[in-house]
Amino acid sequence: MNDQQRQLRVGLAQVDTRVGDLAGNAELVRTWTAKASAAGAHLVVFPEMTLTGYPAEDLVLRESFARASERALVDLATALAGDGLGNVAVVVGYLAHTEGSGPAPIDHPDIDDDRPGDANPRRGAPRNAAALLYAGQVVTRYYKRHLPNYGVFDEARYFVPGNELSIVRLHGVDVALTICEDLWVEGGPCGVAGQAGVDLVVSPNASPYERAKDDLRLPLVRRRAAEARAPIAYCNQVGGQDELVFDGDSLVVGADGGLVARAPQFVEHLLTVDLTVDPAVNPGRTEGRIGPMTVTRHVLSDEPVAPFEARPNSIAEPLTDCEEVWRALVMGLRDFIDKNGMKSVVLGMSGGIDSALVAALAVDALGADRVHGVGLPSKWSSEHSLSDAQDSANRLGMHYSVVPIAPMVDAYHGSVELTGVAAENLQARVRGTLLMGLSNQHGHLLLATSNKSEVAVGYSTLYGDAAGGFAPIKDVPKTLVWNLARWRNEYARSRGETEPIPENSIDKPPSAELAPGQQDSDSLPSYEELDAVIADYVDRDLGMAELLERGHDADVVARVLRLVDAAEFKRRQSAPGTKISLKAFGRDRRLPISNRWRESLPSVREGAAQ
Amino acid sequence: MNDQQRQLRVGLAQVDTRVGDLAGNAELVRTWTAKASAAGAHLVVFPEMTLTGYPAEDLVLRESFARASERALVDLATALAGDGLGNVAVVVGYLAHTEGSGPAPIDHPDIDDDRPGDANPRRGAPRNAAALLYAGQVVTRYYKRHLPNYGVFDEARYFVPGNELSIVRLHGVDVALTICEDLWVEGGPCGVAGQAGVDLVVSPNASPYERAKDDLRLPLVRRRAAEARAPIAYCNQVGGQDELVFDGDSLVVGADGGLVARAPQFVEHLLTVDLTVDPAVNPGRTEGRIGPMTVTRHVLSDEPVAPFEARPNSIAEPLTDCEEVWRALVMGLRDFIDKNGMKSVVLGMSGGIDSALVAALAVDALGADRVHGVGLPSKWSSEHSLSDAQDSANRLGMHYSVVPIAPMVDAYHGSVELTGVAAENLQARVRGTLLMGLSNQHGHLLLATSNKSEVAVGYSTLYGDAAGGFAPIKDVPKTLVWNLARWRNEYARSRGETEPIPENSIDKPPSAELAPGQQDSDSLPSYEELDAVIADYVDRDLGMAELLERGHDADVVARVLRLVDAAEFKRRQSAPGTKISLKAFGRDRRLPISNRWRESLPSVREGAAQ
Repeated sequence: MNDQQRQLRVGLAQVDTRVGDLAGNAELVRTWTAKASAAGAHLVVFPEMTLTGYPAEDLVLRESFARASERALVDLATALAGDGLGNVAVVVGYLAHTEGSGPAPIDHPDIDDDRPGDANPRRGAPRNAAALLYAGQVVTRYYKRHLPNYGVFDEARYFVPGNELSIVRLHGVDVALTICEDLWVEGGPCGVAGQAGVDLVVSPNASPYERAKDDLRLPLVRRRAAEARAPIAYCNQVGGQDELVFDGDSLVVGADGGLVARAPQFVEHLLTVDLTVDPAVNPGRTEGRIGPMTVTRHVLSDEPVAPFEARPNSIAEPLTDCEEVWRALVMGLRDFIDKNGMKSVVLGMSGGIDSALVAALAVDALGADRVHGVGLPSKWSSEHSLSDAQDSANRLGMHYSVVPIAPMVDAYHGSVELTGVAAENLQARVRGTLLMGLSNQHGHLLLATSNKSEVAVGYSTLYGDAAGGFAPIKDVPKTLVWNLARWRNEYARSRGETEPIPENSIDKPPSAELAPGQQDSDSLPSYEELDAVIADYVDRDLGMAELLERGHDADVVARVLRLVDAAEFKRRQSAPGTKISLKAFGRDRRLPISNRWRESLPSVREGAAQ
Repeated sequence: MNDQQRQLRVGLAQVDTRVGDLAGNAELVRTWTAKASAAGAHLVVFPEMTLTGYPAEDLVLRESFARASERALVDLATALAGDGLGNVAVVVGYLAHTEGSGPAPIDHPDIDDDRPGDANPRRGAPRNAAALLYAGQVVTRYYKRHLPNYGVFDEARYFVPGNELSIVRLHGVDVALTICEDLWVEGGPCGVAGQAGVDLVVSPNASPYERAKDDLRLPLVRRRAAEARAPIAYCNQVGGQDELVFDGDSLVVGADGGLVARAPQFVEHLLTVDLTVDPAVNPGRTEGRIGPMTVTRHVLSDEPVAPFEARPNSIAEPLTDCEEVWRALVMGLRDFIDKNGMKSVVLGMSGGIDSALVAALAVDALGADRVHGVGLPSKWSSEHSLSDAQDSANRLGMHYSVVPIAPMVDAYHGSVELTGVAAENLQARVRGTLLMGLSNQHGHLLLATSNKSEVAVGYSTLYGDAAGGFAPIKDVPKTLVWNLARWRNEYARSRGETEPIPENSIDKPPSAELAPGQQDSDSLPSYEELDAVIADYVDRDLGMAELLERGHDADVVARVLRLVDAAEFKRRQSAPGTKISLKAFGRDRRLPISNRWRESLPSVREGAAQ
């Protein structure tokens, strides 16, 4: 190291924050800053909107919450100093409440606040913000510039964008603050930082998990490091929040694009990184207007830290695809249950693969003692459905009981005439009612076992098998359900543990067993075909022409699209479930119920033939 | 009239478009343009996004749909000329698909379209657009500049804003095109038009109904007319689309702010207006860059129309508040049923006011023959609940049957132990299952009779009384339910018709009758108090301090807020229902389920005590 070089130990606190829990999240910051300080860190970075949790959704529009967030930030700075941590620079996310009006500057004529029905003009502008705390003070605040408003994000609904870039000199190292989406835009804050001259860019994130997203992060951060001409410390949230799972995977990339350190996914983790920066590389240090932003600089300390022996940086082993998905599903389920204070869960066990998989996930997430399975055989249930359900339960060590549904089904039939689909749905609803009864009686949360393929084509009964407080595999297509089951058994085998999922459940042809000899294949294309069409129509939002170009069978496409479109009303009422794909049936995909658009080839007259 | 003055007959086609039905909506344009032409109109204005319907939500992100919309526009221009309507200028809304990328310009590194899980970078930019069609041509296109992204709107998710203002000279009258939200912004396109010099501003709208919104429109349009220094022709959509109702109420305001003409609410209507404009008033006519926009001008015809005798313009009588709400609810219900091709509806009739009101709405909307009521008495139902239900049905002439639920309830009790709340919920779910069975068997859509007060505090049973495809009074607080019932009876009386709602149902204390002698007042504050708190906490999003400032009782507030917050998970799965208030429990209010924020006074430590 030469005279010019500066060292800095940076801690990325990859933590699980809770939406709405200002006090608890502030405590989390204190705890992890203490850990980082004990590990010698000079600078600690937390995830996006640490104090409020993310996404807080419309909560950020509530003035009382925004003001409380501002107070919590100031109190936190004081508390950290009181903890003896005032000499650690802490970058923490929060909800700022600034002067001016919110993102919807509407001219409301003659608004009288006491008139009923008035629109609520926003008083004050909410900001997605990050602050640097040091020596008991809020040294600087940064307001996120690029606000994602697509997919699951609605940040333009909530925040006013910022246009100032804050750079703080800490121990002679110039550190720029950015937030999440800022990193996804070429020529954004990282470009400005590169022009201004910095030694490090920190990026708090709340980046939700999607399969293979970790493959996107590294190239992305590399490109921004090149633009910034400085290393980037990317700290991501970890944990489940309703339908989203945040997978951590925090990382640090050097100015040269090299991966310096990487945290594991799906666990809270303190990623400590020793950086050596050479300010001589970017000698020019400017401020003021650069491109679309105004750069402001603050000097905390010019004096570099005393030289210390840099420790090797750690790079976590990447997970295989199946393990990654499994852990995401487990985290999503566990956090929904625990964050909502539920003690236990109940689910119907059909002996089929979906409930077998959900049971295995639930036991991995909560422990066998908190999981209650119920076999609900009807006249049409096969012997094996009951024995396979029992087998699942035995392997998992979970609670299990059997309640035949015939008496209830018969009582309905004794009162009204129900045939065909109505009779099939009745059975599913008797099960749903039974399970909800047990849920109410014993305080369990009911898990729906619907998979993505069913949810897509509406092959489920509203208030029947679709009933539940949470649907853990709602975003898992059937073909992946099988793959995950096989993977989970293999995982157990490799560790000398009992395989949790009965082979029978994996191998047998799927059936809802709502009528004698019924099989899913009676009503649906093969799951291989179905899932492939769903991936292109739902996830990628392709139209008819493109679907055919990609080689799907025209009849299968026509059938599947009709089913998918017609099932919108069912999905509107479905339980939340963990997003793992590019596009889940949640906030990602907002289609109208009353909708006459039907995909067809362009030469055909547009619109429904009806 | 002097030599300078110009006349123009403008038709505002206040029509009901259908989302997704490009062909049907184009037909509608042809039909109404013919009507307007027969009435002598030179210019016809249609509502916002006429061809696609509004809101089309994520459908606008589908390229196949956007391209189909572009084709439909061009085909429509040709068709109108073929209809002999080429000499009428038609302003029609549509979805444009322009070059460039969508509203989420994300830098996706190394995107390979064949990689699973890739984000779907948008190819082409969707625009909320309006075009002027004349003589078989698309003369000009305008792209909406101000995109609402609050409340029920997500236009920043969908569209790229425009920055060009189009002005077309038609018969010597300079007409500027704007769209909806453009009118809500001071200094927006109307201000630019005023500086540029125009004679008329047309505004296609899709402005959803809210109580007293009509009171907002006129002052708003007046202010913009003053800015534009020209009359404004405001044409609004009419009809129900999922949870939104568009109330029409199209209007024309003169440059002097005077109300020139106004259409009725809740009906399709051709509002024809005879305008006389004096170009000498604003002699300067500029184009090019003005403020934030670029003004472009097109001349179709300089020659004024031959003088004609102006007919008196019509101004519809405003509706009373209750009638307005009633018509909105009827429209919302009818359009949801009809636009989704359902033939009939079924609902549980408890003898209480909610089901009595919903039955009356359904009969007004669909006719008695399409409405099926079912009395579902249990052990705990009073005599009067059955007789009042029968009375409702008789008054309305609707179908009615009775199915006692005891056999089903007893069958469950014979299989599992269910007590307390679990037993109460069981009854509600048996009813829900029964009604859904009838729905499946006979093809009815099930109407849920939940009101806003219940939905707010979660005083309903998931999959029980909350079950249904549509919840017509979901956004109607209990106190308004009573008012509407009284109003509807009075309305009937004044017309010499049978009062549709039994007095008993209005007068008796509300009870869910799930346990002996049970009354709502056992568990809830009075509805007067409850509804007042809901209006301030839910609709106005006020925090604890403001709620107390407004005079609500602290204990009531604490209790109600706790119930409202805890009911979020139930609302997430609820059926859609018509929005009538400032903030309904739909797209207007997006709160997380996993949420630890609890309102309290600022001096108390923030966050949950848990």
